[in-house]
Amino acid sequence: MRLVRYNHKDEVRTGVLVGHDIHATPGQGPVAALEEVTLLAPCDPRVIVCAGRNYGVPGKLRKPRLFLKAANAVTGPGAEVRRPHGLRRLEYEGELAVVIGRTARQVPKRHFRDYILGYTCANDITADDWRNDGQWVRAKSADTFCPLGPWIETDIDDPAKLHIRTRVNGLVVQDSPTAAMLFGVDELLAYVTRWITLNPGDVLLTGSPDGVGPLAVGDEVAVDIAGVGVLSNTVR
Amino acid sequence: MRLVRYNHKDEVRTGVLVGHDIHATPGQGPVAALEEVTLLAPCDPRVIVCAGRNYGVPGKLRKPRLFLKAANAVTGPGAEVRRPHGLRRLEYEGELAVVIGRTARQVPKRHFRDYILGYTCANDITADDWRNDGQWVRAKSADTFCPLGPWIETDIDDPAKLHIRTRVNGLVVQDSPTAAMLFGVDELLAYVTRWITLNPGDVLLTGSPDGVGPLAVGDEVAVDIAGVGVLSNTVR
Repeated sequence: MRLVRYNHKDEVRTGVLVGHDIHATPGQGPVAALEEVTLLAPCDPRVIVCAGRNYGVPGKLRKPRLFLKAANAVTGPGAEVRRPHGLRRLEYEGELAVVIGRTARQVPKRHFRDYILGYTCANDITADDWRNDGQWVRAKSADTFCPLGPWIETDIDDPAKLHIRTRVNGLVVQDSPTAAMLFGVDELLAYVTRWITLNPGDVLLTGSPDGVGPLAVGDEVAVDIAGVGVLSNTVR
Repeated sequence: MRLVRYNHKDEVRTGVLVGHDIHATPGQGPVAALEEVTLLAPCDPRVIVCAGRNYGVPGKLRKPRLFLKAANAVTGPGAEVRRPHGLRRLEYEGELAVVIGRTARQVPKRHFRDYILGYTCANDITADDWRNDGQWVRAKSADTFCPLGPWIETDIDDPAKLHIRTRVNGLVVQDSPTAAMLFGVDELLAYVTRWITLNPGDVLLTGSPDGVGPLAVGDEVAVDIAGVGVLSNTVR
């Protein structure tokens, strides 16, 4: 099932996408066509916990490397990513995003599925110059630095069997199976929730594969996860 | 005016505290007595931006050092702070907290007052061992690591004319005028909102004076800001 959040006639609503139609609830008739609405980020997280360096050489990290993105950074599919004035290097990082469905506290690894509503695509936009602030607040949480979407796909049994491709202006720049994650979704969720309670709508970003690179004004960047969807944004 | 958020008969409400009575709106009759309710954190922030090392040697920092606390960490006055299992050193950091009242984006320094609802006390609880994670997610955002309260005091004209005292089991351990901040509330708000839009209810923590120290299980820690209120919590 594809869960959407959208703006229709200046009202924000949630629904289910069936083909090109949006239904308020499955089985009832359509309330709008996809073309008539503006899709928004499919959830409205308060907490966004991210795993850094989660693809690469196995065994290199003893534990997940976490950082936060702040809720102000969230933006939707098709929305513009704003490149801050004076920045030298803005980067894309295509990622699989996990959307929490149930209050998740000290989740046992083997029960991770019980706490997940579904999956969407994320672009962990990063202001590379500002990483040397130490804590990555400006680097990771400036407005529009967290595109999410296009919807939440709920019918994913194994998040390690997906494949991420990121394209910049049509050119493939990242191309990796999610099986290459160093810490899987189960391990990340268990680790984070030992200390941090995640609530419905909160998001876990699972890290970006090799191939992270720069974005210029006018670039179109698409994070394409087969079986989930395509998240596309333009830089201005 | 003192704005409270509270739990009364299993319902979460907001109101105004007048003496020991809570009013739904000023001028109308009281709806409950302070003793009958449980005060909660007086706001429900999505974004909590914090200034690190904001007291100390003037001129040492060229710009504010920011970090984030995540919303799951928020807890109320009187609530327990949970010391994570196996941690060597848990610390208190008494701070003045700014509560945003109006969408704040690229706020000019001189207009900072227009965007502030009021002030409350914060305790920036920190797991010192975990700072070496690099990004301070576990160190700063574990559950209960952000006590806020007891209420929002709206009648503060100049946040640089306040005084913070932190007491552990009655002993004063931090004692500083807020005038000793390296970057004032005006500068912090202008700096943060150049990139990060803050919304009503979001919180800015303004840094902790000298005297940060450890907390043991059973300790009672109180952040006392004259003219604002006293935020008291116990460690378990």
